[in-house]
Amino acid sequence: MIPGNFRYIFFDADDTLWRNEEFFRAAEDRFAELLSSFAGKEHVKETLAEKQEENIPVFGYGSKTFLLSMLDTAEQICGGKFDDSIYRKTKGIVSGLAYHELELMDGVEDVLQQLYPKYTLAVTTKGDLIEQLSKFNRSGLGKYFHHVEVMPVKSEEDYLAMARKLDILPEEILMVGNAVKSDIAPVIAIGGTAIHVPYQVTWHHEMMEMPCSDRIFEIKSIKNLPELLL
Amino acid sequence: MIPGNFRYIFFDADDTLWRNEEFFRAAEDRFAELLSSFAGKEHVKETLAEKQEENIPVFGYGSKTFLLSMLDTAEQICGGKFDDSIYRKTKGIVSGLAYHELELMDGVEDVLQQLYPKYTLAVTTKGDLIEQLSKFNRSGLGKYFHHVEVMPVKSEEDYLAMARKLDILPEEILMVGNAVKSDIAPVIAIGGTAIHVPYQVTWHHEMMEMPCSDRIFEIKSIKNLPELLL
Repeated sequence: MIPGNFRYIFFDADDTLWRNEEFFRAAEDRFAELLSSFAGKEHVKETLAEKQEENIPVFGYGSKTFLLSMLDTAEQICGGKFDDSIYRKTKGIVSGLAYHELELMDGVEDVLQQLYPKYTLAVTTKGDLIEQLSKFNRSGLGKYFHHVEVMPVKSEEDYLAMARKLDILPEEILMVGNAVKSDIAPVIAIGGTAIHVPYQVTWHHEMMEMPCSDRIFEIKSIKNLPELLL
Repeated sequence: MIPGNFRYIFFDADDTLWRNEEFFRAAEDRFAELLSSFAGKEHVKETLAEKQEENIPVFGYGSKTFLLSMLDTAEQICGGKFDDSIYRKTKGIVSGLAYHELELMDGVEDVLQQLYPKYTLAVTTKGDLIEQLSKFNRSGLGKYFHHVEVMPVKSEEDYLAMARKLDILPEEILMVGNAVKSDIAPVIAIGGTAIHVPYQVTWHHEMMEMPCSDRIFEIKSIKNLPELLL
């Protein structure tokens, strides 16, 4: 059992409740293929990563920004050969991405069913508002959660603002997620507790060393959560 | 004085706290000018409005969607002549839009200063998460508000979800805003009270007849709010 008096358990969504990152990687591959007559695939992917780093601070996370970064990449790489066909095909690659069939992580629903009578559960995710809410609605998990919070960055400030809104102390937060940078480090920094559930693919943008704290717990699968909490 | 026991006053942001719609209309004019060698300006604007109606339900409100709708319009109108130059210029038109200097409505800060010691104030806006939060941060009005809520649509369900999150009853909501469809009608429908402050420009997407209710009040300017509430 984890020590602490938690009023809320916050769950990350992408790659914690459902698979996500692998679909972005597959879209990246299709895009590199689309531009392969103009540049090598690795060069396309590197340019796309640069455009993402430029665009995310201005436009936020999510597939609309991903699309804009792809278009910026195509415009740069194809120059005067960027045309309506490349525009349409790039849009097609991303359109499928935001609204694909959701694949829940193994055992998620069973775990939530055990926890929700005993804790107040909320989803804390970052990304595009309408895209994240659409995924949440399609997940069928709505009945287990008090609400969903879409944060701009998942910074310390974002978690503090959420605690203020819910009228709870940061120490009363227990966060469950896969990303050290977004789910673990900021919650630990403000005094909360975090459970890390690693996922097979991590976006390079999210790479960060795990901080050192006795308030971080690690489990192999979300299926192991009830043993820690009940 | 308005009758009722309000725990929260919710303020719409765009065209209630600061000017917004006129900048979108100016961007539309510049875009129609950009495509004027391909089609008449009215045709460009009508096509753009159609693309917006298609894209908003999928991608949400805000300038990223506006940009995608412009690109869809350009791709349709220019066909094989859509190129990197049109892409760059269209992007340039919208880039300025989301991050222009904010112009607060006349008297806003004075009104908030009078109200915030007596009420809990929140901003409820719709649109793109990072864009709306960026405007809020740049407005300098942060100190008067308990928090900002960016809603996907401002539907009845969105206001009910917000009341649930804040643990208040819909009857305890007082909403101040310019848009009948987003600010007045849904709040009245769930049992709240609304103060309508008309703005000089209304987006056609937001046009709606005012519902009939004795819980709707109208003032000419936000400057008249303290007389109603203090």
